[in-house]
Amino acid sequence: MQNERSEILISQFGSASQLQKSENSFSTDLKNDEVLIDVKYSGINFADIMMRLGLYPDAPPKPFIPGYEVSGVISQVGSSVNDFKVGDEVMAGSRFGGYVSKLVVPEWQVVKKPSHLSMEEAAATPVNFITAHLAMNEFGRVRRGDKVLIDCATGGVGVFCLQMAQTLGAECIGLTSTPAKKEFILSYGAKAYTFEEFEKSDENNFNFILNSTGGKKVKDLFKRLDKAGQLTCIGLQATIHNGKTSLPRKLKAVLQTPFYHLIQLMQNSKSVSGFNALKFFDDKRWMINIMKELESSTYKPHVGKVFAASDVTKAHEFIETRQAKGKVLLKWS
Amino acid sequence: MQNERSEILISQFGSASQLQKSENSFSTDLKNDEVLIDVKYSGINFADIMMRLGLYPDAPPKPFIPGYEVSGVISQVGSSVNDFKVGDEVMAGSRFGGYVSKLVVPEWQVVKKPSHLSMEEAAATPVNFITAHLAMNEFGRVRRGDKVLIDCATGGVGVFCLQMAQTLGAECIGLTSTPAKKEFILSYGAKAYTFEEFEKSDENNFNFILNSTGGKKVKDLFKRLDKAGQLTCIGLQATIHNGKTSLPRKLKAVLQTPFYHLIQLMQNSKSVSGFNALKFFDDKRWMINIMKELESSTYKPHVGKVFAASDVTKAHEFIETRQAKGKVLLKWS
Repeated sequence: MQNERSEILISQFGSASQLQKSENSFSTDLKNDEVLIDVKYSGINFADIMMRLGLYPDAPPKPFIPGYEVSGVISQVGSSVNDFKVGDEVMAGSRFGGYVSKLVVPEWQVVKKPSHLSMEEAAATPVNFITAHLAMNEFGRVRRGDKVLIDCATGGVGVFCLQMAQTLGAECIGLTSTPAKKEFILSYGAKAYTFEEFEKSDENNFNFILNSTGGKKVKDLFKRLDKAGQLTCIGLQATIHNGKTSLPRKLKAVLQTPFYHLIQLMQNSKSVSGFNALKFFDDKRWMINIMKELESSTYKPHVGKVFAASDVTKAHEFIETRQAKGKVLLKWS
Repeated sequence: MQNERSEILISQFGSASQLQKSENSFSTDLKNDEVLIDVKYSGINFADIMMRLGLYPDAPPKPFIPGYEVSGVISQVGSSVNDFKVGDEVMAGSRFGGYVSKLVVPEWQVVKKPSHLSMEEAAATPVNFITAHLAMNEFGRVRRGDKVLIDCATGGVGVFCLQMAQTLGAECIGLTSTPAKKEFILSYGAKAYTFEEFEKSDENNFNFILNSTGGKKVKDLFKRLDKAGQLTCIGLQATIHNGKTSLPRKLKAVLQTPFYHLIQLMQNSKSVSGFNALKFFDDKRWMINIMKELESSTYKPHVGKVFAASDVTKAHEFIETRQAKGKVLLKWS
């Protein structure tokens, strides 16, 4: 069977204006373990921007549909699907393909929408929650009494990290670019510094540091780790400035991001790591457990702004120019 | 007040025959927080050998007394010491200075000997227990269900790691150089492989790997980590072969030990670390908690061989020629 859906495709690398919404047919012949979701909202991630700029090595060949997460309602289920029925409100992670009005995914990438989340919040949750969960509970394995630094505290991942640190009983410090956002960090029981204030501070002995920039900042953060402390890098925001990147800028950020020799780590008694949460998205072995965590989570994302799916160009530009505070979503109707 | 004690000093770098026992006077004017221990046994560590060879950058200036751990009986206490009294059986960690018949140390480096340990076992415990504890509980933060690899399973640290893995409920694999030692690993509920068998095996998806060699083996181990897995290096045994090292050999091992770029770690979603447990020994903030762990530990070391302190040359040679299976001790009488 064929059905019609709206899709947003990346068919050429370049500016946000390349993104176009179009109507296309797709097959509704589901595999046994698949479900069809009538998508209400799609989440936008920084990786989507990188992908559109041609800076994301793991992107599929063009043309492709970006997007890692949606919320919506189940409208059809495969023959072996027992956990979902038509009408269930759900959220789902998908590795690419999320910028669509109707999404087919295997059931293990889907969970019921927790009742404390709105449909908007549900679309804003999977990628950021999973990233924060991996950082705090799998890489950092943060526990009571740890001292934790979140350098992207007002971003989508950071909001979840602040909540997790509070629940875990860790002492948490959140960084932000502007003094105005400090209040937001404080509201989660964390200490707040601007980047400038923090650089001048003598805060150190961190057990876990989450870094989202890469680049030259990493060296200073590494010094501030306690013995046995771990620095985890989840992004290279240093490659982008005011919504623009360039090969020289990218090269500079990569070159300034340090190498660590194992012997140097031994001498410092420290740990470095990094990850791309999106690579866990098509690893069923991991996702089955992660989606359980997601379903039972009581945390809330911060939704920044919702754009109509037809305004996807504006939505990308909004993120690239750093206007976003909280998650940016596309609304399908 | 002055008193006499036996000391073993490193006054020249070189072969084990350089080590000499001599009688020297020392001050028994204790600081408030110090205790004097009548030493029964001193533990020998691989770092002592490296130090004697001149390969240990953090060693104090010559001449100095090596040695990181002792067992013995308290024979005098400083004015503010409340937790110990004369006659208490204790074990202690000390950063250098342990090859002596009478040792002065701050009380926070001392704990009462747990009743399940003999005096011999107590001297065989601090360094290896603390190293294993840091590896498993601070770096790896190993938990139930984790898959763990210990590449030095029949060594002093490995024995504690095997016991900790069992207690934590982790699935553990231990490696050894000789098939004859596999039985020993199996007795702790772990799986056992020789290095050769393991290289050919497809064991992978480890959450935590403890590596004691450095060198080219690290690359293969890194590949065998699961996503979010951590490799921790605690030694460079690759620099020593049949009790001998040389500058070319050392250089080769160091050059073959890999660098990790943070971006490479991100792409692999993995973690690398290393540490030198001995650097924690003079960090009071850390030691206070570690010594509590040590005091309440129910684990047992494996004592390999005891030499009279006057036979320290033979004891070092015994370790360098890889005859040791279990901890080697010096006995003072």
